[in-house]
Amino acid sequence: MIIVPEREIADLMTRDAAFDAVEQVFAAMASRDAYNFPVVREAIGHVDALYGFKGGFDRAGMTLGLKAGGYWPNNLDQHKIINHQSTVFLFDPDTGKASAMVGGNLLTALRTAAASSVSIKHLARKDAKVIGMIGAGHQATFQLRAALEQRDFEKVIGWNFHPEMLPNIEKVATEAGVPFEAVELDGMSEADVIISITSAFAPSLMADHVAPGTHIACMGTDTKGKQEVEATLLTRATVFTDEVAQSISIGEAQHAIADGSLTEHDINEIGAVINGTHPGRRAAEEITLFDGTGVGLQDLAVASAVVKLAVEKGIAIEVDF
Amino acid sequence: MIIVPEREIADLMTRDAAFDAVEQVFAAMASRDAYNFPVVREAIGHVDALYGFKGGFDRAGMTLGLKAGGYWPNNLDQHKIINHQSTVFLFDPDTGKASAMVGGNLLTALRTAAASSVSIKHLARKDAKVIGMIGAGHQATFQLRAALEQRDFEKVIGWNFHPEMLPNIEKVATEAGVPFEAVELDGMSEADVIISITSAFAPSLMADHVAPGTHIACMGTDTKGKQEVEATLLTRATVFTDEVAQSISIGEAQHAIADGSLTEHDINEIGAVINGTHPGRRAAEEITLFDGTGVGLQDLAVASAVVKLAVEKGIAIEVDF
Repeated sequence: MIIVPEREIADLMTRDAAFDAVEQVFAAMASRDAYNFPVVREAIGHVDALYGFKGGFDRAGMTLGLKAGGYWPNNLDQHKIINHQSTVFLFDPDTGKASAMVGGNLLTALRTAAASSVSIKHLARKDAKVIGMIGAGHQATFQLRAALEQRDFEKVIGWNFHPEMLPNIEKVATEAGVPFEAVELDGMSEADVIISITSAFAPSLMADHVAPGTHIACMGTDTKGKQEVEATLLTRATVFTDEVAQSISIGEAQHAIADGSLTEHDINEIGAVINGTHPGRRAAEEITLFDGTGVGLQDLAVASAVVKLAVEKGIAIEVDF
Repeated sequence: MIIVPEREIADLMTRDAAFDAVEQVFAAMASRDAYNFPVVREAIGHVDALYGFKGGFDRAGMTLGLKAGGYWPNNLDQHKIINHQSTVFLFDPDTGKASAMVGGNLLTALRTAAASSVSIKHLARKDAKVIGMIGAGHQATFQLRAALEQRDFEKVIGWNFHPEMLPNIEKVATEAGVPFEAVELDGMSEADVIISITSAFAPSLMADHVAPGTHIACMGTDTKGKQEVEATLLTRATVFTDEVAQSISIGEAQHAIADGSLTEHDINEIGAVINGTHPGRRAAEEITLFDGTGVGLQDLAVASAVVKLAVEKGIAIEVDF
């Protein structure tokens, strides 16, 4: 039994390793070598906590297990620890024995950032120069940092409902040597790539804010009712997702599905693009949209990668369990 | 983070502690202080394994978490370890941080045995003298051992589809100083308490095999399609269960529910009897039947109890996670 505590993850896990793990597991999902289990998500009726399990099995990577945890809204105030708390548990697919326990907090941020990065690699125009950020919270910094590695971006533009948070992402841009500019939402028409990463329940980015040829990664909507972009945008775009079942129910596509303007069959798996069974972007003027809903297999994939790294570097705690 | 490996459980956990934990959590379920989450159960398409999660939250006992694991049918042949493999993970309900990891194999056997024991304590006649066993596998020995502590039984009778396995339960009876006798199914009419613990898909115990005043604990049916007793028996009996939702869908009651002879409202929670909000047995001639389906909260309750024992005895492994 290998244990990798949360405090070790930052030094162990790289954005490259997270990218590779997420890209591989999206590919395995599309080739039906990997699948996610039904998600359990419960408001437990104690300190307003949301708790649950996201599990899956990847036969290609031989990764089995779950992420357990959730959202404890009073953690920061009352316990000085972050509100999102999760742990990944891996099992030996050959025997069912628990094989690893890994802190899941930073991994969740990294795998979410990796997902939009994977979508940019496979769907954005090669000559993309301007990246726009909708959202400037903690997770937005991860998304931007990973995205900047995918194209030779020359400018970052950003909008946030609370503009005083924009320095969070400006800092990331500056560190990467890319100039940053705060814009209004209609200024997003300058962007070649847009990442939205908010927890909004009403659309910020409207269809008219998006220029032809843009790639949009909608990363914030993971619950019924949340929405980041105008539903019309999904009918103008070629829509991709990590998992169609989640996209239509709890992802950004839920609204266009509900109003009948989009059907399940209009939504493509990003893994099919990775595998080469879907061509991805077909024209420079095409708008592509990735609905990143977040699946348990992403968590298992990055946890499995970090376990390997921890063992290689002699950092893993081994317990005779 | 406390770790209690499987190998420590046998010396740590007592039948008394398992009984108390299960009795308390059944009571908490009936008073709505504790509830089970939806069960995830997946045939993962690898080595014929069944894998899944049973989670729950007990506000009364402040126990949150899940049992993860399942059934690996080739384990014994190919890896020399038992086919049922499970691990319990506990979380701090105040923060969402993982707090304990506990081997779940022996605990599962003990909590299942505790459940029929709890039903015997609260539903069998005080003057019960003969206990009948339907089933003589590994789990049957746990059920009988625990049951013998609940009444002054003077005789054990047993039936099994494979009679050559009966020595398994005869040994338990002999160790407890109680005579054992193998019987045919119609010989079960001699029993005051009957425990059925098989994995059959057709009824063994028919209604006419059961005398008035008997308490029956049906412990084997935990899946759609399984059946241990004739459905008519449930209409002749006052029916109790751990969880009504499971009883009607995957428990012994599923068949009487399906043929319309029983309704959900005919099924009572054993926890209500423990809490005193249901009178339980009302007459010496009444047949009572406990449909023990097995819930995640039982696993969490016994795991939580064994963590306390391990810490008290200095056996717990502490990891700075």
